[in-house]
Amino acid sequence: MDNRPIGVFDSGVGGMTVLKEIMEKLPTESFIYLGDTKRFPYGSKTKESIIELTKNGIEFLIKKDVKLIIIACGTATSQALDFIKNLYNIPIIGVIRPTVEYINKTNKKNIGVIATAGTIRSKGWEKAILNKIPDAKVQSIACPLLAPMVEEGWNENKIATLAVKEYLKPFNKIQTLILGCTHYPLLTKTIKKQIGRKVEIINIGKFVAIKTKQILNEFKLNSIDNKKQLEVYFTETEYKFNEVASKLIGKKIQAKLVEEENTYVIK
Amino acid sequence: MDNRPIGVFDSGVGGMTVLKEIMEKLPTESFIYLGDTKRFPYGSKTKESIIELTKNGIEFLIKKDVKLIIIACGTATSQALDFIKNLYNIPIIGVIRPTVEYINKTNKKNIGVIATAGTIRSKGWEKAILNKIPDAKVQSIACPLLAPMVEEGWNENKIATLAVKEYLKPFNKIQTLILGCTHYPLLTKTIKKQIGRKVEIINIGKFVAIKTKQILNEFKLNSIDNKKQLEVYFTETEYKFNEVASKLIGKKIQAKLVEEENTYVIK
Repeated sequence: MDNRPIGVFDSGVGGMTVLKEIMEKLPTESFIYLGDTKRFPYGSKTKESIIELTKNGIEFLIKKDVKLIIIACGTATSQALDFIKNLYNIPIIGVIRPTVEYINKTNKKNIGVIATAGTIRSKGWEKAILNKIPDAKVQSIACPLLAPMVEEGWNENKIATLAVKEYLKPFNKIQTLILGCTHYPLLTKTIKKQIGRKVEIINIGKFVAIKTKQILNEFKLNSIDNKKQLEVYFTETEYKFNEVASKLIGKKIQAKLVEEENTYVIK
Repeated sequence: MDNRPIGVFDSGVGGMTVLKEIMEKLPTESFIYLGDTKRFPYGSKTKESIIELTKNGIEFLIKKDVKLIIIACGTATSQALDFIKNLYNIPIIGVIRPTVEYINKTNKKNIGVIATAGTIRSKGWEKAILNKIPDAKVQSIACPLLAPMVEEGWNENKIATLAVKEYLKPFNKIQTLILGCTHYPLLTKTIKKQIGRKVEIINIGKFVAIKTKQILNEFKLNSIDNKKQLEVYFTETEYKFNEVASKLIGKKIQAKLVEEENTYVIK
């Protein structure tokens, strides 16, 4: 039993959809979310920069005394997780492996991935899938406009429909579609209309939540505290970050600003 | 007469449309362009961060021995120019004032502005216009999706048309429309179709080019060198920055990467 909070790190506000799923699955846990909104998006950064920024985020959360860390960002997971997970003394999980483990169980081999350009370019999903399911056929498509569309609230209008149609056009006979960017669950309805009902749409937050529960059980880290809390920190609080975060998690978010000179040093 | 290059600073690659206009107007000049692609976009950053990053950029260009600096970014101009222009010993011009001076001469008072959320939120255009033309009526609309659409090459398709239509809908009887984001000149055709032929569409690069020529003449800084050169530096060269830059300026760009530890220190 461990009443300390779970840390969630993301490059911005998108990880709120992952946090939403985890909070639903683990209703007695407390959470500290850090969104590096000042340097968002990570998708256009080098691997080296992403590792450096992810380490900064992890160290901020460790100072806040979290018991486990979830990297809720597809780009940071694919570029930085393997490099950093053994540097710290607490469990760190990303969004890719839990999802791939689930897909492996479904026995479906024709897998589509949509994500930001950075995540697609890193081939993080493709490598992880082929590593676990060597005979899988993976088709990946970068959709750089979909995340900003969700932020604009254009997730079910005609523009979103046309953009989704345009982006999904090249997919050929996929059975499973991974929403490889944390903003995309809000496009589920629009995507379902385009891709058809036979394709299973994967909201990665769900499988991260299942994995988190497993790890808490395994390491006996479950909380029995009833004073469950959610603290949200952003490295930049201007712009509409609180508004978009609230939209993604489905409840009002008011983030605290991380004071960089004290707690979040750029190395 | 001064054969040193002109420096152009931008938060990313958008300033290439401004550089294009200046190069056409000043064919004997050399240029050094710095795009802070690593920290792009500035639109979601605080005023304090934007000032700090713009100073870094200016100091990089000054070390490269430029004779004049153009801040080709609407956000950096509106948030940082007034604060930093007296800190250095060379002329620094932004994209706002030259445009407003032109509009003042046209005697048109109903002015629309479209730009990124950060630029609109800063009210930089509005303040500058009302300062020069107190009886102007300014309507401003943030269009956060238009710049990423241009980067995707979606500037004349149906999605761009619908997005432009949606964004421009609230404008009421404007006579002039300022393209307050440097990506937007590539949407001119699409915007013209929606807004009608009577509205004058303002490509800010044109007026920055005119202003630059005036200053070179005034301070006798014109180059008579025939070895005119263009050097382009980005703080991040991965992703499709070179590709988008080439699209915006209409010729092949291959940027050099700024090595931050040596020349571009984050304070």
